[in-house]
Formats: sequence, structure tokens, C-alpha cells
Amino acid sequence: MRLAELSERSGVSTATIKYYLREGLLAPGRQINATTADYDDEHLRRLRLVRAMIQVGKVPVAKVREVLGHVDDDSLPLATRLGSAVWALPQLPEPDEDDDFVRGARLAMEELLGTLGWSNARAMASVSPAFRSLVLAAAALRRLGYDWSPEILVPYARLMREVAELDMAFMESHASEAEKAEIAVLGTVLVEPMLLALHRLAQEEESTRRYGFE
Amino acid sequence: MRLAELSERSGVSTATIKYYLREGLLAPGRQINATTADYDDEHLRRLRLVRAMIQVGKVPVAKVREVLGHVDDDSLPLATRLGSAVWALPQLPEPDEDDDFVRGARLAMEELLGTLGWSNARAMASVSPAFRSLVLAAAALRRLGYDWSPEILVPYARLMREVAELDMAFMESHASEAEKAEIAVLGTVLVEPMLLALHRLAQEEESTRRYGFE
Repeated sequence: MRLAELSERSGVSTATIKYYLREGLLAPGRQINATTADYDDEHLRRLRLVRAMIQVGKVPVAKVREVLGHVDDDSLPLATRLGSAVWALPQLPEPDEDDDFVRGARLAMEELLGTLGWSNARAMASVSPAFRSLVLAAAALRRLGYDWSPEILVPYARLMREVAELDMAFMESHASEAEKAEIAVLGTVLVEPMLLALHRLAQEEESTRRYGFE
Repeated sequence: MRLAELSERSGVSTATIKYYLREGLLAPGRQINATTADYDDEHLRRLRLVRAMIQVGKVPVAKVREVLGHVDDDSLPLATRLGSAVWALPQLPEPDEDDDFVRGARLAMEELLGTLGWSNARAMASVSPAFRSLVLAAAALRRLGYDWSPEILVPYARLMREVAELDMAFMESHASEAEKAEIAVLGTVLVEPMLLALHRLAQEEESTRRYGFE
């Protein structure tokens, strides 16, 4: 397809597509002559992904380029490519290891992964942004004086594991490795807000069912 | 306890406690004489909640006052008091009902609630911030050209319902209505980030288990 059709089918203006091309977020089309290039469905798919990250995920252009670099790097193991978005998205600050709450929270969360038998996540804990945010949230609760046992998290974690299995099943229904990695990026940017919205709706439903509105 | 002890036990400076008192975020202590007031465990608990909202949730002071007003209003039905935080926290923009994607997404999400049998959430949909964010996220996916059936969300929603049941069970293990409402606020501010972190960790675990790191 020509640039005009790519623009029409994606809803992205030709000026914006040209900008993405210049910034290397979109591979050049197949050059037909000096002024015309041809684009295919892969361009369209990539364009939608770029737009999702920029418009919905508010990911800066340089970061989008970095994420796509990981998504496309087939020298990387698939599990790493699937994690591209999470590892490249804005990160929480490094926890302060001189802080007793942080140290206590880290130990408790490492124990939690042990209890869950999540040995892969445990092995990656020291470099994982997800583990870091869990530690920071746990430390915040302790610092606020809330005394709680990490055991509380076990059933939550098991449900989240089921959610992750749904994620993977959906992804595996898609063919190529490249597409899988793209879907994983979309999942992080677009599906997490839906998950939170569903959680809050479920709370409304369950709370009203239990306590009614009298 | 005196102000100094309240400060020590909460980790909040006396100056900040005095500020919260002036702003009406904390009820005055029992006046003992012209310069001394006495505080109890309820003050301590409320102080921690206020600090959680301000420091971790980044909720503005005026909004904290509004949320606490709902939490404390025992003329409101309990289900409403429990939802105080969600309804008072920063809201997404009102969806544009002239937009075909929004209208389509709203219909699809109403249908989803029907399929799930969430009749209470369905009845509140027109005023629910959670439903609004679900519609906005669904509309964004459609606008980006991702063609998906809302059926995909059914198993996710069922898992989130189980999460909400855990939330309620935890809350019900706490005695008074006031405490329940406080825990619901904390849950929104502090527990949702943990839920997302657990989701991402579960993805790491499951992805590495399936695809390894070769």
C-alpha cells in the first residue's frame, strides 16, 4: 500500500508517519521510485504499536525506539523480548538499601517468592523492575506502621499467576516471535489499566452484593 | 498519649501533625489544659491513613479531606463509604460520547457486565469511575485498530472478582465500619501497585518457565 493508504488504515496522519520513519520507529517502505514507497501489513501493525505506546502509554519517542530495539532483537531470548516493555518503561527509584524498612521488605518479598515456588522470578529478583516495585510498596506499608504478614499476599499472587497464564495463552495464539513480543508490549501499556478497572468494578459488585445500598 | 508520642509512634513530625490538625484531616485531641491535648490509638490510625494518601498516593490535601468526609459519614451506605477512595481519586476525563469508538466500547462493556452477571456494577455503570476507565481503555484499543472481542475479558474479570473477594474477606476480618472504610481507602492507594507488581512478576515467572533463557 502507499503512504496515503497506510495513513487512512491506521488513522495516523502522513506527517506523523514521516516523523516516525525519520525517527526510526518504523522501517522504511520498499522504494518503488524516487518519490514513492510501498508499505505492507507489517508496517501497519508496527505503526499501531508505536501509536499505542506514544498516545496511550505516554512513552517518550527515545524509549519507544529502545523498546522496539529489544522487541526486534532476535539474538535475545524470547522471555527477555517479551519483557521489553516492562524493563524499558519508566522505573521507580532504586530502593535505599540503608533503610531498615526496605531491607525488611526485600527479605519478606524474597521469602514470598520462595513460598510461591517462583524460582525464575526469584533468580531474577535483584535486577527485576517488578520485584523492585513490590519491595518499594511493601516498604511503604511498613514505614506507615501497618503491620502485616507477607502471607496475606500468597492468594493474591496465585491469582495473578492465573492472570499471567491467560496473558501467555492469548499471546501463544499468535504466530511469530516478533508478534508475541509486540503483544507483550501492548499488554503492558494497554491491558494493565483494564485489569485495574476490572478489579475496581469487581469491588463495586462484591461490595454492593454484600452490603447493599440501604 | 501526648503530641510528642503520637509523632514518635507515627514517624510524622509534630509540625506536620499540627498542620493536619489545622487542615481538619485529623480530629483534635482531648484538651487537658490550655497547651496540652491527649491523643488515642484512633488518632494514630487516622494519621497513618492520611500519611499514606499524601505521601504514597500523592493525593492533594483537599481531596484527602473529601475522602475522609465520605469514610466518616455514617449516614452513607457502607458500600458507598467503601468506595470513597476510588470515587474521590483523580478521575479520567469524561469519555466523548460523540465518538463512535467510545459508544461502541461502552456497549461492549455493558454487554460484558451482563455476561458476567455483575448486575450491581451494571446498575451503577453510568456513574462509576471504574466503568468509565474500562470504557476509555476499550475505546483506545479499538481506535488503535485492534480488533478484539470483549469475550477475551471474561476470564480476566472472573479472576479479578476472586481478588475482590479476597479484599472483602481481609476487610471483614476488621471490626468497625469506620475501620473497614479506612482499609478500603488504603487498599486503593497502596495495594493496587502491589497487585500490578505481582502480575508482572508472575509474567516473568511464567514466561521464563515456558521459554527459558536460552
